[in-house]
Amino acid sequence: MAGTDSSIPISLAPTPAIILCEPQLGENIGSAARAMANFGLWDLRLVRPRDGWPNEKAVAAASRADHVLEQVRVFQTLEDAIADLTLVYATTARSRDMQKDVLGPEEASLNMAGHIAGGHKAGLLFGRERWGLLNDEVAMSDAIVTLPVEAAFASLNIAQAVLLMSYEWRRTSAAGRALPFSDGLDEAAPRSELVGLFEHLEGVLDQSGFFTTPDKKPSMVNNLRTALTRGRFTSQEIRTLRGVISSIDRRHERPNPNRMKKAEKPGEQG
Amino acid sequence: MAGTDSSIPISLAPTPAIILCEPQLGENIGSAARAMANFGLWDLRLVRPRDGWPNEKAVAAASRADHVLEQVRVFQTLEDAIADLTLVYATTARSRDMQKDVLGPEEASLNMAGHIAGGHKAGLLFGRERWGLLNDEVAMSDAIVTLPVEAAFASLNIAQAVLLMSYEWRRTSAAGRALPFSDGLDEAAPRSELVGLFEHLEGVLDQSGFFTTPDKKPSMVNNLRTALTRGRFTSQEIRTLRGVISSIDRRHERPNPNRMKKAEKPGEQG
Repeated sequence: MAGTDSSIPISLAPTPAIILCEPQLGENIGSAARAMANFGLWDLRLVRPRDGWPNEKAVAAASRADHVLEQVRVFQTLEDAIADLTLVYATTARSRDMQKDVLGPEEASLNMAGHIAGGHKAGLLFGRERWGLLNDEVAMSDAIVTLPVEAAFASLNIAQAVLLMSYEWRRTSAAGRALPFSDGLDEAAPRSELVGLFEHLEGVLDQSGFFTTPDKKPSMVNNLRTALTRGRFTSQEIRTLRGVISSIDRRHERPNPNRMKKAEKPGEQG
Repeated sequence: MAGTDSSIPISLAPTPAIILCEPQLGENIGSAARAMANFGLWDLRLVRPRDGWPNEKAVAAASRADHVLEQVRVFQTLEDAIADLTLVYATTARSRDMQKDVLGPEEASLNMAGHIAGGHKAGLLFGRERWGLLNDEVAMSDAIVTLPVEAAFASLNIAQAVLLMSYEWRRTSAAGRALPFSDGLDEAAPRSELVGLFEHLEGVLDQSGFFTTPDKKPSMVNNLRTALTRGRFTSQEIRTLRGVISSIDRRHERPNPNRMKKAEKPGEQG
């Protein structure tokens, strides 16, 4: 199949963001950009690309999908890359033993189409070439998306995975707008606020001795983040939950000699 | 996405044949073979491959999709290559001013699935890298299949086009219903455990002075319960969250005279 026609205007309609986590090869970034352009996507974000940015090999592989490359944004953390999104799916070919929904591409695309049609922002995470996404990256997502591949041949390169998800977006996005009304849920908070909640809670738990063994802390943190992500909290709910944490945490400030004098009188503290 | 597991048996169920007309690069043949293997196709036919067959570059690009390469058949004419087929679609990105139906990938796949389920054979033609299919090749087909690409970026390489059509086959044929793994969600906890979490949290918040005005308490409780219900927590997660609440709450036990003596030594409490 052939054909690139630069005389046709390009539309930057609202579409999902594509977030590549630590991509290693410029060729793959370029091929992913081209695959996005094939199906009308344009918001490409890179988290710590190994060879920096811009990247000449990416330009060559993008085959004139310049409007995508020009929009590329580079981030130092995944948290920053998804800060403005309110629906985030993690693509993976491996089961993760995590408390996350697993969706096929069609269901994921339909969900994103409904979300974006409602004026909100959605994005898809793709992992690095050799290892895919790390569990702490998957933990930041609302659900997992996996492709209906043969079990014996599950591996796709990043550009192929981006191509298939972009195709599926294109195919299903028209249908996604068809519902006469959407649910009554307020918008989920931007991911940056959820990260703020996590960091607040984890900081307090560090102080309280919740993480008894250091080597278990990462998986405990992932489990907590996974549980707290599923609720799709609004900004108001996140403020409330942070108030909850602060309220419990402050109930008995760490005693210092001056305060303790007072505290010895029953009922004055708290 | 990663994962090739050679221990899983490969099924050679009836699927469409993929026919590449005069492919020029071995890499593209190998990538097409791999894309077929990803989605359970295996019948690959080559018409006059430029660099002959077998082809080492194809083997390298196929990434262990050996069962597809081993089955490859080479033909001198398109007529020979499609001799046993009774339904043939030509893939193209260009309009052909021919009296042929033009189908999207989904409709084409559904038609092929019905045809193959009836015990018949179907195939998809793909053109050469630079020019696609010739008109006399398209003329041999029952209909044209084209992908819903952006008009300005219509070109896909052969392996990408094969990947998308193979995915669409997988999706729309019966096998398409199965994802390689299903979600890891454990069952949500019985509602009694959720209520236990609520009562625990609300009791601690009563103590901590979170509910500043009594008349607002009912709506604050409702909002918290609403947010915490949406996550559909498992029993394990509820235990974890109750541990979180207790851990923060216990950080500074309400001081009593005996404990406070110890607490005056820095670092012993908490």
